[in-house]
Amino acid sequence: MNKKLILVTNDDGIFAPGLKALVEIAKNHGEVVVVAPNSPQSGMGHAITMNLPLRLHKIDVFEDIESYECSGTPVDCVKLAKNVLLKERNIDLCLSGINHGSNASINIIYSGTMSAAMEASLEGIPSIGFSLLDYSFDADFWQAMPYIDFLISKVLHEGINDCKLLNVNIPKLTRKEIKGIKICRQSEGNWVEEFKEGKDPRNQTYYWLTGQFLWDDPHHDTDLWALDHGYISVVPSGHDLTVHKALPSNAHLENQTI
Amino acid sequence: MNKKLILVTNDDGIFAPGLKALVEIAKNHGEVVVVAPNSPQSGMGHAITMNLPLRLHKIDVFEDIESYECSGTPVDCVKLAKNVLLKERNIDLCLSGINHGSNASINIIYSGTMSAAMEASLEGIPSIGFSLLDYSFDADFWQAMPYIDFLISKVLHEGINDCKLLNVNIPKLTRKEIKGIKICRQSEGNWVEEFKEGKDPRNQTYYWLTGQFLWDDPHHDTDLWALDHGYISVVPSGHDLTVHKALPSNAHLENQTI
Repeated sequence: MNKKLILVTNDDGIFAPGLKALVEIAKNHGEVVVVAPNSPQSGMGHAITMNLPLRLHKIDVFEDIESYECSGTPVDCVKLAKNVLLKERNIDLCLSGINHGSNASINIIYSGTMSAAMEASLEGIPSIGFSLLDYSFDADFWQAMPYIDFLISKVLHEGINDCKLLNVNIPKLTRKEIKGIKICRQSEGNWVEEFKEGKDPRNQTYYWLTGQFLWDDPHHDTDLWALDHGYISVVPSGHDLTVHKALPSNAHLENQTI
Repeated sequence: MNKKLILVTNDDGIFAPGLKALVEIAKNHGEVVVVAPNSPQSGMGHAITMNLPLRLHKIDVFEDIESYECSGTPVDCVKLAKNVLLKERNIDLCLSGINHGSNASINIIYSGTMSAAMEASLEGIPSIGFSLLDYSFDADFWQAMPYIDFLISKVLHEGINDCKLLNVNIPKLTRKEIKGIKICRQSEGNWVEEFKEGKDPRNQTYYWLTGQFLWDDPHHDTDLWALDHGYISVVPSGHDLTVHKALPSNAHLENQTI
């Protein structure tokens, strides 16, 4: 059997410890190629670079792993990997992360990590985005290692029923404390934003984004509930933003002419 | 009755003709405040600016309309409008656009226009993103004016059943040719990307994104079908990316412990 080809990317940049951890796990499952941004790209959402040229440089970061740094966004990394670097090959799996910080609930919308994985899924590649609920640089990515290993193996060999993308979030717990995996839906929630207003050295006003995440969806089938109760949350995700239940009730607008 | 407060934004920047057209229409429906990027932000997706301060300057672009240019992304514009500029007030409606070019099908994912509108909807504000299928600078935004007017009035006074966000795309047709409005689902589709490879003046390789949109979902209930047949497409949209049909079939993973 041919070795599986696994593309690994992230949004925290090529030198992030979370990427290193993910590469270490991935290389047990196949041939790994890394294409990651050359600078942190958190909060980039599904941004793509259209008005600037992109740079792609081979870089020796991981022992025996073909790696590239890219000047673009996480989505650009996936597009370049698929359409330039690995153009002639079939990518069996795309892994993104491990992100420092949660991408549960609506954070999937803002997340560069998840957007990279989603981009790969749009290209037909089964994809998993991993995030650990720990923002610190020395976060311990190894506690959940057996679970990450299990999920990679599952998706690589059995696929994901009815979808191509998993949003996996991991609570900041020890291996013993982690209760298991829960398949969930994306929780409702929202950010209550504040902007820190300040003056720059030239006495001009600036605003700097800060905020607090509020969670108002306490149901047991949500990712936030799972994480809050010691589980790794797995949300089968896609790219259809249609509110299907709103379709028939708006039917009175159908064929409206003016 | 108090005058309605309408926030208008876009992703093509404060001087884009599409924004001017939307402001002209919006001001018949209430008090308009404009907060738009100071530079084009197409393809920014749901990017937010976390690691840089943001600038917001009052600017006199539209007669008798309070307007601001912002150094950030379209989503930043909405966050600043809601949490700084209009903090003490209730925004009744957010309009984004009119975008030069289609945001139908999966283009909603990449679109700064739609991400701005989605951000407002996440904040609980009914929102509409408008896009015209014409990339040219002198695109005629007025052909669909009565329809835009109708949709704004509808959402402002009756709301949107079961959702807070409409993705409205307008075919490049004359008023007479436009057949009406169709409420649809987001079509499947995908971009087949190519990168133009070149050498910069220092002889370094660069890659520049280009691509072609492929459409493989010919069903009559989709936005692409509607647009292709002369209708304005209206997709009731949200922010839930869960693939709900994938939830039960993955139940064998439930509570998996290792």
